[in-house]
Amino acid sequence: MQSKRVAVIGATGYVGVELTRFLLRHPHAQVTRLTTSQSQGVPMRTLLPEVHASAQHQVVPYNKEDVIQNSDVVFLCLPHTEAMQHAESFINAGKVVIDLSADFRLKNPAEYPVWYGVEHLAPALLHKSVYGLTEFYRDTVKTASLIANPGCYPTATLLGLLPLVKKKLIDLNSIVVNAASGVSGAGKKPSATTHFCEVHENYFAYKVGKHQHTPEIEQILSEAAGSSLKVDFTTHLLPVNRGILATITAKKTAEATEEKIRAAYEDFYGKSLFVRFRKAGEFPALKDVQHSNFCDVGVMLNPRTNTVTVLSAIDNLVKGAAGQAIQNFNVRFGFEEGTALL
Amino acid sequence: MQSKRVAVIGATGYVGVELTRFLLRHPHAQVTRLTTSQSQGVPMRTLLPEVHASAQHQVVPYNKEDVIQNSDVVFLCLPHTEAMQHAESFINAGKVVIDLSADFRLKNPAEYPVWYGVEHLAPALLHKSVYGLTEFYRDTVKTASLIANPGCYPTATLLGLLPLVKKKLIDLNSIVVNAASGVSGAGKKPSATTHFCEVHENYFAYKVGKHQHTPEIEQILSEAAGSSLKVDFTTHLLPVNRGILATITAKKTAEATEEKIRAAYEDFYGKSLFVRFRKAGEFPALKDVQHSNFCDVGVMLNPRTNTVTVLSAIDNLVKGAAGQAIQNFNVRFGFEEGTALL
Amino acid sequence: MQSKRVAVIGATGYVGVELTRFLLRHPHAQVTRLTTSQSQGVPMRTLLPEVHASAQHQVVPYNKEDVIQNSDVVFLCLPHTEAMQHAESFINAGKVVIDLSADFRLKNPAEYPVWYGVEHLAPALLHKSVYGLTEFYRDTVKTASLIANPGCYPTATLLGLLPLVKKKLIDLNSIVVNAASGVSGAGKKPSATTHFCEVHENYFAYKVGKHQHTPEIEQILSEAAGSSLKVDFTTHLLPVNRGILATITAKKTAEATEEKIRAAYEDFYGKSLFVRFRKAGEFPALKDVQHSNFCDVGVMLNPRTNTVTVLSAIDNLVKGAAGQAIQNFNVRFGFEEGTALL
Amino acid sequence: MQSKRVAVIGATGYVGVELTRFLLRHPHAQVTRLTTSQSQGVPMRTLLPEVHASAQHQVVPYNKEDVIQNSDVVFLCLPHTEAMQHAESFINAGKVVIDLSADFRLKNPAEYPVWYGVEHLAPALLHKSVYGLTEFYRDTVKTASLIANPGCYPTATLLGLLPLVKKKLIDLNSIVVNAASGVSGAGKKPSATTHFCEVHENYFAYKVGKHQHTPEIEQILSEAAGSSLKVDFTTHLLPVNRGILATITAKKTAEATEEKIRAAYEDFYGKSLFVRFRKAGEFPALKDVQHSNFCDVGVMLNPRTNTVTVLSAIDNLVKGAAGQAIQNFNVRFGFEEGTALL
Repeated sequence: MQSKRVAVIGATGYVGVELTRFLLRHPHAQVTRLTTSQSQGVPMRTLLPEVHASAQHQVVPYNKEDVIQNSDVVFLCLPHTEAMQHAESFINAGKVVIDLSADFRLKNPAEYPVWYGVEHLAPALLHKSVYGLTEFYRDTVKTASLIANPGCYPTATLLGLLPLVKKKLIDLNSIVVNAASGVSGAGKKPSATTHFCEVHENYFAYKVGKHQHTPEIEQILSEAAGSSLKVDFTTHLLPVNRGILATITAKKTAEATEEKIRAAYEDFYGKSLFVRFRKAGEFPALKDVQHSNFCDVGVMLNPRTNTVTVLSAIDNLVKGAAGQAIQNFNVRFGFEEGTALL
Repeated sequence: MQSKRVAVIGATGYVGVELTRFLLRHPHAQVTRLTTSQSQGVPMRTLLPEVHASAQHQVVPYNKEDVIQNSDVVFLCLPHTEAMQHAESFINAGKVVIDLSADFRLKNPAEYPVWYGVEHLAPALLHKSVYGLTEFYRDTVKTASLIANPGCYPTATLLGLLPLVKKKLIDLNSIVVNAASGVSGAGKKPSATTHFCEVHENYFAYKVGKHQHTPEIEQILSEAAGSSLKVDFTTHLLPVNRGILATITAKKTAEATEEKIRAAYEDFYGKSLFVRFRKAGEFPALKDVQHSNFCDVGVMLNPRTNTVTVLSAIDNLVKGAAGQAIQNFNVRFGFEEGTALL
Repeated sequence: MQSKRVAVIGATGYVGVELTRFLLRHPHAQVTRLTTSQSQGVPMRTLLPEVHASAQHQVVPYNKEDVIQNSDVVFLCLPHTEAMQHAESFINAGKVVIDLSADFRLKNPAEYPVWYGVEHLAPALLHKSVYGLTEFYRDTVKTASLIANPGCYPTATLLGLLPLVKKKLIDLNSIVVNAASGVSGAGKKPSATTHFCEVHENYFAYKVGKHQHTPEIEQILSEAAGSSLKVDFTTHLLPVNRGILATITAKKTAEATEEKIRAAYEDFYGKSLFVRFRKAGEFPALKDVQHSNFCDVGVMLNPRTNTVTVLSAIDNLVKGAAGQAIQNFNVRFGFEEGTALL
Repeated sequence: MQSKRVAVIGATGYVGVELTRFLLRHPHAQVTRLTTSQSQGVPMRTLLPEVHASAQHQVVPYNKEDVIQNSDVVFLCLPHTEAMQHAESFINAGKVVIDLSADFRLKNPAEYPVWYGVEHLAPALLHKSVYGLTEFYRDTVKTASLIANPGCYPTATLLGLLPLVKKKLIDLNSIVVNAASGVSGAGKKPSATTHFCEVHENYFAYKVGKHQHTPEIEQILSEAAGSSLKVDFTTHLLPVNRGILATITAKKTAEATEEKIRAAYEDFYGKSLFVRFRKAGEFPALKDVQHSNFCDVGVMLNPRTNTVTVLSAIDNLVKGAAGQAIQNFNVRFGFEEGTALL
């Protein structure tokens, strides 16, 4: 199969480094450019010392024309509100763009000022973008020129909830999502929040009631439900490097039973490569999925309260970012979906 | 004020050691006996090396008669199902017993086989025992001969929820509690679950749908509500030594408003020594309460979903165990409530 | 005993906060000013939430005259090279200054450009300053107007080594010190080095061969030995919040024996309040000393190699900074040496 | 190239699981048996959930005959003193045995009672065994029937020291090794030492002066030096899952210079696949080598003290155990040395 020349824009952040890790072992990806917004380059081996192939690569200052000339596919690993400034040029130049930021996930441009504090700069592209939750949007990913790779929290939450919503097994007005993430989700930039002494031996909720991933989750669930719904979504910072665990509860509908619930997940994930539906009574831990592209899901119907409890775990940097981007890359170009990931 | 002679039964576990820490600095407690079920004693300084006064004390093998002769107050820091074997002797001998296990918390003896897997051995005492959630049961604690010190999760959960329940500000059928605890809550006995490599850089839910603290929470909330209610309660293991954070959500009732909600907490905790109700928009972190007897509570009404979100944080070994036991000791004997704790 | 009015300059950093913790419980200290170099003040309770008394105090922007008027004793908790700009004014105004930075520890002004990269701005004060390693400089501390509180690594290292050096039990040309510190030693300012993801599940040596505490250790040991000596000193960053463990080895001298070695430590520390010399075969862990002012020392003579191995542990923020500052404050003003510390 | 049928005896411990991880991706290894000493088997996916291929494998109760019939190569991942009971049968049956325990590393059977507390049960095999520090014993590994895979601490220490010893650049009487290891080095069996609350936010030295890896290090260094030497070796427990950092100091010999020292490392490691000699001024961190088979070495000559300081880092489960075993497997059977490891 023909290789694709790939560029990673923003290759020094945690997501960019993780993406490069996978690309360097991808048999059909030729890593041609790794870029940084800094004025000085840096050897990739200093960022990925444990990967042998990283010794051959250099991260260089970003140069748009150079990237255009040397890539077929451009991965954007930029902060939110920066990706929207760059995507159009690449799309116009005929590149396939896989954006790992939030900039093309929400369909309604009016949501960006509310949740991200900025006006969208390329609203016309929002209609073109395809939401890259691979397990549920595989067909549209296949032909997309702009793939909006899902957020980390939405990936864990949606893979846990979509079977219940699509099969109408839960009361849509009762969804409560409590999720906890490792610190790499906050990015590499030092801040008071990510100082070791502020996180280690600590735990807390943050952005209570206003996390920017809320509308992304609601948009996809509403689409699946066929009607607008809201979720209670509370995020927490865990003293770990990697991983997200979403603990989801919702009241069951009258017709829902343990059997129907389990059947719903089996239907959607029975043949899934990366979503593993656990046996009754088994629930995932972060360590089951760290460094892998798996999403593990465990489910229980509590007969005392008529509530469904779902536990969904991913590695925020892999299935929640770089790994799913590779999965979408594979689907988009007809490579085996697990290439470089299994 | 007259000192009390105090004995700690089970002084080598995490709770027993923490309790001894407070007792050694209590001006009205004379620590006369620290006991272990082991056949060999151990110097207290090896368990509490950072406390100067610990150098003077020895933990000795348990001897009932010796304890009875040398104490006015007996603190039981024993595993669940063991305390129920010992309490009666001490009560009959006229001692005040403060039990830090679960053995006298549930009023209905039929709950013990369901949640703890054992028949209760001293059901007659269940009527005598007073639930020691000090802030809400202060008056009965004052004259109790058997104080059932609350569980760690129930303490955080109940202090977060009781104002809402008592003031009828939430739908009693919609309560969801997600709580996460540090590893000391699992006790000192080595096990696969507490092995460093299984906890560090990990996070998971455990006992999903069947944590033994569930009926304790429901009993107290039902009593406060005046009608039987159930809660969805999911517990998680945090890679930290100490602390519990409970994230609680419930649908508001029709008449509830932000103002009424805040007023409810102000009513109950405005003059509280240990429960600190946070300003609007502020939520507690574990580090705010570690090593202290505080319970910090933050509240938000989410207008998008009509849900109240409560964050409640304690140190599981202090307010969730040893500290609250000291608080009850102070209340029981008329010492200043904050003695040795502030 | 008469109280002293105390001011803490730099009260928002890790050392300043820890110092305030102790001062707030000191019966003879009246905390009159807590200052910050920021233009905005901050309530002390946000920095010390677990301390009840912190609720009464505010950190205010620094104002020299105001501090002078409202204090008898000034604690400087400033970054290195800043303390030297402030000390003189306070000394001239008759205050006792206890400096927790490195600015007055080295007697030779020529060392500052070499190890700290700056010319000393107040070299005349270097002769006035008294090195505050309380156990060995108690007599000079008693009358000092400027106390140079020792560095964290030097405290652990010197308390471990001085008995051997003073009693001539080790070859002065063979001293190797390997020390590891928790992250709070690096201060509160966020940086790439203190980002949680760079420290957690990691460990490394830093400033190899050039740590600025090297000349401080050598100055004091040389003074004790009566001749100039050098040490090999390598520092490491531990993924913990608090604590320093120094692992020290040196070849024994011909006349040294296990008995003489143990006797040397007993001589110096047998009656010490804060240095605890461990029994043969016992060695300290960080948890033995965290949050306390203790320094625990364990020693072994290895007959296979004729080497003495010393393990010395402190809490870097307590005995290595704020606690020792309080100890010096107590000694200076004739309070019981353990006041507020035991 | 022809595949080898491989069996892992003791596949449920941390080393056995890590070894299986590598074998499952080895193109020339056919994993035929994974065994446990327990009477019940367990699916490999529960131990290696993040590895897709683990889903196909079952760990089964150990059966010697079954292993003999179904393997060409037997990896022993057993506790010390157990491997010596099993190796002979496999060797007599013509298998190549790669032993990851300490049982065949020391040449002198008299050392086992001293350091391991047991008489050796198969002393005749000690002469047959080849020490598998691949970089220095590659030629003998190629034809060995019994490969004694090095210990984790010795691997880091020897790779750091052998160039200096072989080139006579350090005083052999002055070697001091301080090493720190992650908790996985202590094995999977729960104990007081590995309880999360005893390790987290803690750090300490253990087995001071008597770690059983001491004679292994001395044996190999003495062989390299051509004369018997001793080392001061102190081990510490780090609150991390994986990794060893050895901090090594020794006085330089008269003729040693910075240039000669660096040249020595370049000579030995310039073309090495797995030992990476760092540039002057660069020193390794655990995260540079975790999950990889690399050993990173940084060196400095301290002109103030005439001491050479070496920092050497490995992943204790990979280069310190399973990875090096794979490397030896590759060398033994003529596969590319980096197969399954790069």
